[in-house]
Amino acid sequence: MTDTTFTNHQNPSFLQACLRQATTHTPVWLMRQAGRYLPEYLATRIKAGNSFMGLATNVDYATEVTLQPLDRFPLDAAILFSDILTIPDAMGLGLSFGVGEGPRFAHPVRDEAAVAKLAVPDLDKLRYVFDAVTSIRKALTQADGKSRVPLIGFSGSPWTLACYMVEGAGSSDYRLVKTMLYSRPDLMHRILATNADAVAAYLNAQIDAGAQAVMIFDSWGGVLADGAFQQFSLAYTARVLAQLKKTHTDSAGNTITIPRIVFTKGGGLWLQEMAALDCEVLGLDWTVNLGRARAAIGGSENGPGKALQGNIDPNVLFAQPDQIATEVARVLDSFGAPYQGTGTGPTHIFNLGHGISQYTPPEHVAALVQAVHQHSRTLRA
Amino acid sequence: MTDTTFTNHQNPSFLQACLRQATTHTPVWLMRQAGRYLPEYLATRIKAGNSFMGLATNVDYATEVTLQPLDRFPLDAAILFSDILTIPDAMGLGLSFGVGEGPRFAHPVRDEAAVAKLAVPDLDKLRYVFDAVTSIRKALTQADGKSRVPLIGFSGSPWTLACYMVEGAGSSDYRLVKTMLYSRPDLMHRILATNADAVAAYLNAQIDAGAQAVMIFDSWGGVLADGAFQQFSLAYTARVLAQLKKTHTDSAGNTITIPRIVFTKGGGLWLQEMAALDCEVLGLDWTVNLGRARAAIGGSENGPGKALQGNIDPNVLFAQPDQIATEVARVLDSFGAPYQGTGTGPTHIFNLGHGISQYTPPEHVAALVQAVHQHSRTLRA
Repeated sequence: MTDTTFTNHQNPSFLQACLRQATTHTPVWLMRQAGRYLPEYLATRIKAGNSFMGLATNVDYATEVTLQPLDRFPLDAAILFSDILTIPDAMGLGLSFGVGEGPRFAHPVRDEAAVAKLAVPDLDKLRYVFDAVTSIRKALTQADGKSRVPLIGFSGSPWTLACYMVEGAGSSDYRLVKTMLYSRPDLMHRILATNADAVAAYLNAQIDAGAQAVMIFDSWGGVLADGAFQQFSLAYTARVLAQLKKTHTDSAGNTITIPRIVFTKGGGLWLQEMAALDCEVLGLDWTVNLGRARAAIGGSENGPGKALQGNIDPNVLFAQPDQIATEVARVLDSFGAPYQGTGTGPTHIFNLGHGISQYTPPEHVAALVQAVHQHSRTLRA
Repeated sequence: MTDTTFTNHQNPSFLQACLRQATTHTPVWLMRQAGRYLPEYLATRIKAGNSFMGLATNVDYATEVTLQPLDRFPLDAAILFSDILTIPDAMGLGLSFGVGEGPRFAHPVRDEAAVAKLAVPDLDKLRYVFDAVTSIRKALTQADGKSRVPLIGFSGSPWTLACYMVEGAGSSDYRLVKTMLYSRPDLMHRILATNADAVAAYLNAQIDAGAQAVMIFDSWGGVLADGAFQQFSLAYTARVLAQLKKTHTDSAGNTITIPRIVFTKGGGLWLQEMAALDCEVLGLDWTVNLGRARAAIGGSENGPGKALQGNIDPNVLFAQPDQIATEVARVLDSFGAPYQGTGTGPTHIFNLGHGISQYTPPEHVAALVQAVHQHSRTLRA
């Protein structure tokens, strides 16, 4: 049994930073890096009938768009092209994306009868996702047998899925889901328990299919009240993590460690509590000061701690390239010099604090990635 | 010169708590307490041509709707019925409210020429606001000459006003205003400086007209990145506060202290920095743990510190009355027993963490107010 976590890669920097090991530069990838801001993405989407789910459910298209940003920018990781709402769709809620609109469920879960019908979906209904993972891994494998960059799988968190399942769409006030939470907590717990078990099975299947890291997007954890967050979001993220594979062994007997990333948008006030999660990396949005987060939860040399991922405001990408470089340096400097020893210590993975905007000029993304690589090398000098 | 800050009131509990003095119960009022959830509000609005600004610009209607919630619920403070966007409207941006829509400006501020034209507006254009304050104060004055409850005046913060002025309406991503912030910080600073001076003049005029406390709503401060918040929101809130009257002396020679409240929605991560603001009260949203906030910035007996205002999730009001009472107790308990001595110490003003929803059943508000008064008395026993 050989540990190939890092050796099977041309560029293991993302995985190394996830596991709090030293890298020569700060690895960078961008949430929603395969997306509408890229003309080549829009072209592929037209081929798929101009449908988001048409892209996501077609293995070839999903592979194509996942690789598009890597061909433009020297990003240090790839992320599966998919949606966080595939699980509720497989549960039978009927996901659709109207043109120019967000996601919508035909059958939202709003009463006891609807909750009673919920169950962990047959994973066969999500086969298209696992097939895409395998296909993308294959496309990332180079002539020397190594992976060009690691592939991240992902899922929405139990709470975030529940928000969409109850609201039936995005929401500005979360009135329906919070009404259920406060008036029928029993129903909410039932939904969340089912979601947690479904998310765990879903991510484990992505790992089996080839995902080399997994990320849980708690996009709406930050809308919860203190107290409710711990009970209705954090506890169920923990329930997912408790069921996740920590390693994966392939048929050749090679074993890899699978880093697990948890990102709660708006969760900065609960970092101390999130530090207790059984995961390797915490994602942060732009409201969090990276230096303070490092001091609080980044850990010390060879001690416990979390790698930190984030956290520039995606709107910085609307400034000019020299201004982008300045803001990138500010974010890198706020974290400070990452660990440079031979053991483990505080590390940083550069990312946005939220998904990239569809209006982003692609050449500004190039400026950002270059600035991250360049400035993060000088930070280590 | 007589200090009538508390003596001129039938119920000074709100002002006492603002100034960190002991009260027999925790005072409570609700952001947007005069509003669409009340059928009598809707009736008055019909009389005003079903127009929000029709209500706000008519002294009699503004007075009527300000008092409506006080006639239903034993609230401990009144707040002027108006909008945070009156200042940019007076600057000539052309405020309107479409039916069922949020506010919209006909002339958003998006380029150098538009910024150059901005100036502190002639306060005469806001006379309707000051007249409403005077009228409401008169309506609140009882037969014994005392005020039934204190009247709070308010304004949007410089940054929050700038968001609407640049975006032209509400926004989900603040792309336009942040694009200006990151690419033309000089223009953004110019807007904010003008806004700050306008807000200060506006609040001082409200104080002259009779407002007994003032509140700055930084509704969108929490969308800023760490660093940007301090530079583009907090610094300009401080600029407002530096210009505000701390006391008001009437023609009879009576002097009152004017407590100043600052509320940054989503600002929980910056409480330590907000504690340095020259104001008496900080408003908190529901993501903040009141016990931690008290420990961090509530101060100790006769030491410096801020009174804390907040912070229940408005969606709690969609649960049943007994569940509302449970959540109210949870919030009160998280603050703990307020100061009960004869000097100053940590105090709490109960409120929502954001404006009340238009879908709230009024009888649930009654349950909330009753629970606050009842449970907060037992906390002191």
